[in-house]
Amino acid sequence: MSASSQKLYEGKAKIFYHTDEPAVLLANFKDDATAFNAQKKGSIIDKGRINCIISSKLFQLLAENGIKTHFIDSPAPNQMRVKALKILPIEVVVRNIAAGSLCQQTSLSLGKVLLEPLVEFYYKNDQLGDPLLTLDRLNLMQLATIEQVDIINNLALQINKLLQAFFLQCGIILVDLKLEFGLDSQQQILLADEISPDTCRLWNNAETDQNNRVMDKDRFRKDLGKIEDAYKEVLHRILNAIPHQRNNWN
Amino acid sequence: MSASSQKLYEGKAKIFYHTDEPAVLLANFKDDATAFNAQKKGSIIDKGRINCIISSKLFQLLAENGIKTHFIDSPAPNQMRVKALKILPIEVVVRNIAAGSLCQQTSLSLGKVLLEPLVEFYYKNDQLGDPLLTLDRLNLMQLATIEQVDIINNLALQINKLLQAFFLQCGIILVDLKLEFGLDSQQQILLADEISPDTCRLWNNAETDQNNRVMDKDRFRKDLGKIEDAYKEVLHRILNAIPHQRNNWN
Repeated sequence: MSASSQKLYEGKAKIFYHTDEPAVLLANFKDDATAFNAQKKGSIIDKGRINCIISSKLFQLLAENGIKTHFIDSPAPNQMRVKALKILPIEVVVRNIAAGSLCQQTSLSLGKVLLEPLVEFYYKNDQLGDPLLTLDRLNLMQLATIEQVDIINNLALQINKLLQAFFLQCGIILVDLKLEFGLDSQQQILLADEISPDTCRLWNNAETDQNNRVMDKDRFRKDLGKIEDAYKEVLHRILNAIPHQRNNWN
Repeated sequence: MSASSQKLYEGKAKIFYHTDEPAVLLANFKDDATAFNAQKKGSIIDKGRINCIISSKLFQLLAENGIKTHFIDSPAPNQMRVKALKILPIEVVVRNIAAGSLCQQTSLSLGKVLLEPLVEFYYKNDQLGDPLLTLDRLNLMQLATIEQVDIINNLALQINKLLQAFFLQCGIILVDLKLEFGLDSQQQILLADEISPDTCRLWNNAETDQNNRVMDKDRFRKDLGKIEDAYKEVLHRILNAIPHQRNNWN
């Protein structure tokens, strides 16, 4: 990052900087951790580096499988160069197992395996607390066209399927994951943001104890302890499952 | 109500009693008022009587227009005999104008007229705070079959259309309304619960001041004052608009 780098936007987990190329941004992953719409704040040691490496690996894996993402490369362990996109104000959640707000807002119990993946849309708006969207509400707010929603729904299911299979190789159950998408200058829809233990629920497949098996930000949300160990273990397993790639910064 | 009447269920606004006929219940409308999932409690003088008369009139109006309801008759001003139904745990909200939670959970502003009525489903569960349902969540919880949801959706739109036209004759804008449905012994879907200023948002069409025009429970929710006057005025206008019917108890 040059001394002249101009900050474009600081989010809860990343800072985005302009680069010399207008179509390219530099994302700096932070160690800051927030939960419950930033009502709970803290820090997870080394999280920025870990999440950036995990995200980079998973974006590359998805790209190899035909999914277009904003990922360009990773010039440093906690930095990612990404395509500048117009981010859609929609959080897309794909759920394989009931957990989190799905359990708090329905009669479904934590751990219930869903017969098929459930794709849900949330309004990306911190002030309103990222509320759940029905398709009607999404359309009323014109957050995306019907065609875009259809494309995003299909992409989300494809990404979930690829990652679910990959995580299972790592001995990890992909419970759910949150995705964000953006439009490039050609109005193409690309996967953006990050894919990490901050944005996925990941359960250790070798554990059955509900608290012990959690390998994601729920350890921070629910004060389960050993947060850093869990993030490190996810990184470790992912790097082990991609042995053919050189991991310069590990 | 005979001295032997056995209480079946006490809700926030009504008490239901068994009657001598197993298929018939007696609903006693209370003056108790609650809001924000019963976090705010109070009383509206004469509300039980007013809401029971309003509901009775509106159920009769709907029945005359081919909508099946649980209403049988009204043996006393604050009492209604209704068919015993298996109530579906779904609150159906039809919205003509954006207000309430729709504004709190989207970018839509209070008072925005919707191009077409919006039908929304909520999980009738006080403990969870009656959360919004997507169709997927409704199906996952098996709260109703897909066919039942389709029938309810159509009934809700029909009811809204009839009531919207009737209220406009009364100089009242029907902003939104909450409906509940139940199944009779033949699995027929009937309109249940009540239709009143407790369950509808009603705005005086002659007023433009946002606080002054409110003629419904929002006066209680938002401490706007003159609550009883508003409920009485709604009753008065409804009875005036149905001049051909005798109003014994008024």
